[in-house]
Amino acid sequence: MHAHFFVMVAFAAALGSAGARAEAPPAGRTMADVLAAAVPADWRPLDPENTLYVELETGRVVIELAPRFAPQHAANIRQLARQGYYDGLAIIRSQDNFVVQWGDPDGQRDLGKARATLLAEFTTAIDPGLPFTPLPDPDGYAAEVGFSGGFPAARDPRSGLAWLAHCYAMVGAGRGNDVESGSGAEIYVVTGHAPRQLDRNIALVGRVVAGMERLSALPRGRGPLGFYEDPAQHVPIRSVRVAADVPDSERTRLEILRTDTATFAALVESRRNRRDDWYRVPAGHIDLCNVPIVVRAR
Amino acid sequence: MHAHFFVMVAFAAALGSAGARAEAPPAGRTMADVLAAAVPADWRPLDPENTLYVELETGRVVIELAPRFAPQHAANIRQLARQGYYDGLAIIRSQDNFVVQWGDPDGQRDLGKARATLLAEFTTAIDPGLPFTPLPDPDGYAAEVGFSGGFPAARDPRSGLAWLAHCYAMVGAGRGNDVESGSGAEIYVVTGHAPRQLDRNIALVGRVVAGMERLSALPRGRGPLGFYEDPAQHVPIRSVRVAADVPDSERTRLEILRTDTATFAALVESRRNRRDDWYRVPAGHIDLCNVPIVVRAR
Repeated sequence: MHAHFFVMVAFAAALGSAGARAEAPPAGRTMADVLAAAVPADWRPLDPENTLYVELETGRVVIELAPRFAPQHAANIRQLARQGYYDGLAIIRSQDNFVVQWGDPDGQRDLGKARATLLAEFTTAIDPGLPFTPLPDPDGYAAEVGFSGGFPAARDPRSGLAWLAHCYAMVGAGRGNDVESGSGAEIYVVTGHAPRQLDRNIALVGRVVAGMERLSALPRGRGPLGFYEDPAQHVPIRSVRVAADVPDSERTRLEILRTDTATFAALVESRRNRRDDWYRVPAGHIDLCNVPIVVRAR
Repeated sequence: MHAHFFVMVAFAAALGSAGARAEAPPAGRTMADVLAAAVPADWRPLDPENTLYVELETGRVVIELAPRFAPQHAANIRQLARQGYYDGLAIIRSQDNFVVQWGDPDGQRDLGKARATLLAEFTTAIDPGLPFTPLPDPDGYAAEVGFSGGFPAARDPRSGLAWLAHCYAMVGAGRGNDVESGSGAEIYVVTGHAPRQLDRNIALVGRVVAGMERLSALPRGRGPLGFYEDPAQHVPIRSVRVAADVPDSERTRLEILRTDTATFAALVESRRNRRDDWYRVPAGHIDLCNVPIVVRAR
């Protein structure tokens, strides 16, 4: 009798399927329309050397690393993974509307050949080789925002710097008060409203592209900053592997919608102004962190 | 050896304590400083007639209703609660980075004296009686944003309209495609990055002020739009009560930091530009939905 569903169309088709390019005009399309009309070249595979598999008891979390922005961190995290450093560690923190974090609760584990500190890869120089697809909309935290190689990013032409943005599902390397104290041994993932105040203050190293719900739905820690008070609450990490080291048959086959195509521009527009029947007032704007970076099974 | 914590100070002191006003200068203070210097008049109690207790098996979720923005919805929800309409219903949807939703899975329950449809209370007229404390920062979705009676809100002087904003923990009334099809029988709560595209498209009716983690950490539904596919996954709602109807000894004693005070302005500034030792680059900006509306036990 009464309204049974609501916002029925929002975030529909988060896993779209490819098809022949449609004849529909570019304006007035929904995200489902855009994805249905995408062609194979609109999608890219993950690079196995820049993909991590985090194995939890509930299943796999897939992370795409961002070596273009944090090369030393990406290399160190690969080194740590290959040494088995993370295996048997645990998620020790889940702070509501903020982050989950994993690492060595005791801080005693040997880093082996990995480095204990790294340069502060919080920003990188804007150069012609750095891809950047700007959003048409303004942003409060940066002069320009958009996407770089599939990651939400920001630029400031005055300073000549670019950086990754703390959107939902972004992955970073914890540090102490010293800006060079991060190593990638402690990893956090954004699980709440984008904490953009962290941008340029810490190294983002990648993004969760599958399995995010295995992190975001974890019980919140009741200690300060969401740390679990009781070690029994720690969430074990069975292993972290570089996908390139995993037998082909055990890899997760995913493709990511490229962010430098006309299809992506159409997708952004479909989200800036929703065309679904449910909406009455199109926003005429989209926040950087509300743009979906679409992932599908290959 | 390596960095054990990270962003150690972010979101600290989310439950501050009152104290004598300090002599510290207004600039350069942290949120903890601001809260430590707050005076009793900076805090307000919840109005029991505008407070809902949602009792789950894991405990209580406290919602503050916003009758100034959605008077008919608030009245209808109170009516439904007083009839016991919600008792024994369930959370039937949890969509990652978006919303949880509860209601009658079968749509068969009698609405009794409550109305089945309501006017579309998506916006309200700006008038001198509507409190509004603007943020100093621009917003992409609205001409002005700020706080109205403790709720994140937006205004457009050109249209003469104001509305509540879809920030984390905001509570709304589901509707179908007809804008007047909402009744408050189906309720959703924002659990992800602010879906501001919903602003002005649906009636927000309040905000979760305590127990948010009982909703945000629920398992995500695997059906379309995050609906639970198996009814066994439904999360039972034992009851929903208006706090005024609950014996005094069973009420949750909370106070909310007022959003129309010098203390609140100082809090906003402490978040716009973090003064904690950990930060290297202050943001010089804050997104509406990143401003904490602080709650403490009374």
